[in-house]
Order: sequence, then structure tokens, then C-alpha cells
Amino acid sequence: MNRTELSQLGEFGLIEKIKNEAFQNNKTTLKGIGDDAAVIDKNDKEAFLVTTDMLIEGVHFDLTYAPLKHLGYKAVAVNVSDIAAMNGIPQQITVSVALSNRFSLEAVDELYKGIRLACENFKVDLVGGDTVSSRSGLIISITAIGTAHKQEISYRNGAKKDDIICVTGDLGAAYIGLQILEREKQAYLADPNMQPELGGKEYIVERQLKPEARMDVIHELRELKVIPTAMIDVSDGLASEIMHICKQSAVGAELLEENLPIDNLTYETAREFNLDPLTCLLNGGEDYELLFTIRPEDMSKIKNHPDITRIGRVMDKNYGVNIITKAGNTFPVKAQGWVAF
Amino acid sequence: MNRTELSQLGEFGLIEKIKNEAFQNNKTTLKGIGDDAAVIDKNDKEAFLVTTDMLIEGVHFDLTYAPLKHLGYKAVAVNVSDIAAMNGIPQQITVSVALSNRFSLEAVDELYKGIRLACENFKVDLVGGDTVSSRSGLIISITAIGTAHKQEISYRNGAKKDDIICVTGDLGAAYIGLQILEREKQAYLADPNMQPELGGKEYIVERQLKPEARMDVIHELRELKVIPTAMIDVSDGLASEIMHICKQSAVGAELLEENLPIDNLTYETAREFNLDPLTCLLNGGEDYELLFTIRPEDMSKIKNHPDITRIGRVMDKNYGVNIITKAGNTFPVKAQGWVAF
Repeated sequence: MNRTELSQLGEFGLIEKIKNEAFQNNKTTLKGIGDDAAVIDKNDKEAFLVTTDMLIEGVHFDLTYAPLKHLGYKAVAVNVSDIAAMNGIPQQITVSVALSNRFSLEAVDELYKGIRLACENFKVDLVGGDTVSSRSGLIISITAIGTAHKQEISYRNGAKKDDIICVTGDLGAAYIGLQILEREKQAYLADPNMQPELGGKEYIVERQLKPEARMDVIHELRELKVIPTAMIDVSDGLASEIMHICKQSAVGAELLEENLPIDNLTYETAREFNLDPLTCLLNGGEDYELLFTIRPEDMSKIKNHPDITRIGRVMDKNYGVNIITKAGNTFPVKAQGWVAF
Repeated sequence: MNRTELSQLGEFGLIEKIKNEAFQNNKTTLKGIGDDAAVIDKNDKEAFLVTTDMLIEGVHFDLTYAPLKHLGYKAVAVNVSDIAAMNGIPQQITVSVALSNRFSLEAVDELYKGIRLACENFKVDLVGGDTVSSRSGLIISITAIGTAHKQEISYRNGAKKDDIICVTGDLGAAYIGLQILEREKQAYLADPNMQPELGGKEYIVERQLKPEARMDVIHELRELKVIPTAMIDVSDGLASEIMHICKQSAVGAELLEENLPIDNLTYETAREFNLDPLTCLLNGGEDYELLFTIRPEDMSKIKNHPDITRIGRVMDKNYGVNIITKAGNTFPVKAQGWVAF
């Protein structure tokens, strides 16, 4: 029997394969695999949104520096972020955890304190889950359920030529935060008496350990009566996400480097690590900001929003996906994605 | 800081603790933690049901004898079974899998073939999920979503005194199937040239490896216009499940040993293993049959059903939960549950 390595396909290849072979037959399924959340018929006006994420110790988090309370918070936030990315309102979550006997009740309490805090902040109810034993590390699998008006759902495939490309907050910080934490971990392993040195970098580190889902922006867009024509959350990095929107919308995109939002501290810290800030910004991932497109006529409604930045425009498909650097050069954006296997 | 071992609470203690501290605030949450599935408002007449289960290699399955295709099927079936246990119809599932590089694409294909077969059989759509890398074994986390008429949902807490207690199919086979598989595994480890000897035991082994969710019975009850007053699926064993119904319904129960359905082959094989068939039947678990109570006046509608057995009646709470043995002795039923940690 042939053996094909999963690494030959990569994560997106595997998802594509699963999607193509998925059984989909119920008329209540309005959208299956392929967006930030599945869309299920609720009633005439509304739909349910369903999304799920799994976090594995040693792959997605490292308990030598991730406090369990932050981890619980993050596990909820990344799912809420997927509901936000559909322009929906999260309502419920289920939480499954696999625990080894390495974890005490007090440790589990910390994890659930973070989960509860996120539930309160994002106004979602914890309605179910599973608790099982693990032979090795901690595993957290969360499913979030939300609602949206059918007419207001932002899919990845709705971007049109001339739409404005926007992003919330700033990018790249979560990735740099991870570099700081890894450096401090190595220093600690070399000398366990060493105290971690985060002096002044708390913002960046928190972006890695305890990201927020941008429900604030979703509520504000609703008040401003702006419905993004396409939207996705930045989990794998800006480059990867803009490629998803362009591919599914059959359009191109032009990004302006000078407009891309990066926090000063993130920029300086990237330099300290001899990393190119632009690369961190494009491929860093885990920022959980929202990348979206709006119609040009909606631009006036959001142009004074302090936390939304216009970063480019939607182009014809033939244009491809390019970035104009500060020096005026044009080069193609490549989705590095995330190498899972 | 104090350290409390999870084993001091056990699985049910931990679930109780999580339930008591869970954030629940949205009016769309009709039922949270504490039943086979959560219940979420859909429209005037209908509700959504949501349930989730996580399966971990080395804890819930052993790939030395569980074929990946069967495993995929089972992972879906156990979630569908929870929707069935609410008297609901499953519609969608999300499937998250964590894979190590030990798995080839061909192996993943086998897993998804089983998932797809179950989707076809149970008429559920695969609408999403997550694929991540694992440092060690295979992990499968599935969430199933279903619908039910609000007036027809069978909760665990609706059993009333004098209701009839029924169970579908036969019990104990999945547990005996596991014993056979473990025996053959040990024989194989001792002599890898040995061929597994299942001669004639295929039914029992299949009950362990590829259980069915009893959607057939749910559809039949609907046609017969029978709404169970309480229902639960038999995942942890009959004893544990009847205790859940009695505790949540604040009633007692009397079970009749002579009525408990056990397959002849299961009975004989239990004897071969020097196991007490009654213990296997009460505490074996993983049968995924349905345990339910009905009003006495509904008994005539189902009494000729070949796959539903009347096994006892609901009593006053003060009676407790007792079983009447074939010899006429009465002894209390104790939920062994499942020691997870």
C-alpha cells in the first residue's frame, strides 16, 4: 500500500480534501466547510454559526510560560473570533478538555477561571463539553455557536473589485510575543534562578498569551450600519488570510506597506530579534484581528475609527495579490500558512 | 498551595463543579450542562441540540485492534447517540482531529471513510472542524448538532412514578467485545505470527468497534407517537444511566434482572471470561442503546416492538434504585460510572 505523507498536502491541502469528500445533504446546512464558521438555518431571518478549534499542549501552547487562566481565556477567544469573522454574535460554547493526572483540581480551576472570564466578557454561555483523561498533555477543544442575520453574514467570498481592505488593531505582536517567551524560557532552562525579563514588553506578551476577539468592532460596525463584503480573522497571518479572501472571492488585492498597522514596541522588538517587521506582520499569525473588505461608499462611516486601518483595495483577479512597499516596489504576497505536519 | 487530585472528585464530581460555576446568561440557552445535549432556542416550535465528545488514543481506543474506518464511524455514532437520547434528529457535525506524522494520508482517508459512512447512515452533514498536529496519539473531537420539537424533547428529569422503564437492543456486548480484543492483543504481542481468533464472536466485537446510534428507534417512537418522559443513552453502563435519570427526576426505580436484555453469545462469552453476565450488563458501558421511560398508557404502543424491552418501573424516590434478581432477591443498584482519572 502506498504511503503519502501528510506533509506533502499541508494543512490547507488536507482541509480541501476533506471538504471535497464531505457528506452534505441537509437543506438546513447553508454553508459547510470553507469559511470561519459553518452556517445553519435557524428561521426566516436568522442563521446559526458553528465553529470549532482544538488546542494541543506542546503544539499550540507551552505550559512553562502560558498561565492556565490565560490559556482558558485564549481558547474561548479564538473561537469567538471565528464567529466575529462571520459578522455574528456568539451565544454558546462547549468545552472539552483532556487532562492527565499531572493536573490538580486547582490547576483545572485556573483553566476554567479563564474560560469563565472569557464567557463573561464575550457574553457566551458554557453549555456543555466532555472531560476525559489524557495519557500525555492537555488538550482543549471548544465549539462556539453564534447567530447572525442571514443578510448580514460576511463570508470570505463576497469581496468585489474596488472594495476597501481594512484591518482592526495592529499586527505581528502575537508572534513577537512568542519570541520573547521562547527566549525567556531558554534563559530559564539555562538558569532556573533567573527571573523572566519582560520589562516593558507586557503588551506584546499579552497579545500572545491572552488575545481578544474583536467583538467590540463587530458591534460598532453594526451601529455604523456597515456590513463587510468579506471578512476573516487573522489567525494564520495577514498574507494567508488575504489570500483566502482573494481566492474565494475570485479577486486580487493591493496592500500598502506604509498603511499596515504595527505597534511601535512590536517594531522595535522585531528589530532586537533581527526579524523583519514586515515579515512578522504578514506571516506572524495569532493576532486574532479582523481583516475585512467594505464597499467604497462605506469608507466615510469608518474612516475616523481609531482601531480600523485602511490597508489596501480589492483589485481584478488578474492583478494578483501584491504589496506596495514603502520604497515603491511591488512584490507578490505569498501565503506561508501554517505548516501543521 | 494545596493540591487536590482529580481522582478525589472523579469525572462526575468534576462535571458537577464545572456545571455549578458555568456562566449562563443568554435567554437562548434553554438547557446547559447536565443532559445528553444542550438545548438552544431555534424558533417558536423547535430547538437546537448540541453535544460533543472527545476520543483519545490509548484511553478510548487502541489502534492495534480498532480499524480507523470503524473508529471514524464510532466517533460520529456516539455523538449522534446523544442527540437521539434527547429525542432529536441529528443534522450536522464538526470533526476535529489531531494527527501525528505517524499517520499517512491513506490512514486519514480510512478514518474519514468511516466518518462519511456514518454521516450517510445517520443523515448528518460534515460542516466544519479543525485539523491540527499532535505530538503523540490520535485525538478526535466531534460536535453534533440536531433539532427537536421543544414539546418532544426527552430530558433526563422527566420520569414520573409508575412510568415504564425500557431499553433498546441488548446490553453488555460492547464490554465483552473489548475483553475479546484485549485477549487477542495479548496473544498477538506474545506471538506476532498468531492470527486473531474471533471465530463466531464477530457480533460482540463489532458492538465494541462499530456501535450504532439508535436513530431507528427514535424514528419509530415518533411514528408511534410515543414521547419518552425521560431518556439517556447507555454509554457508561445501565446502572450509571438509570441513576442519572432517577437523580435528576427525583424518583426511584425497580429493575427486573430476568427482563434485562443480554445476547446469548454475550452471556456465554462472559462466562468464558469468568465474568458475571449481570455485572457486564449493568456496568459494561459503550453499548449506545437508549434507556427511557414512558407513561404506562403508552406501553401498548410499543409492546410488540422486537427491539425494545420493558425492564422495570419508576418508583417513589424513597424506594431507591433496586434490582430484583432472578432468585427474587432485592439489591441496590450502584453506579460504578467511569473512573476517568
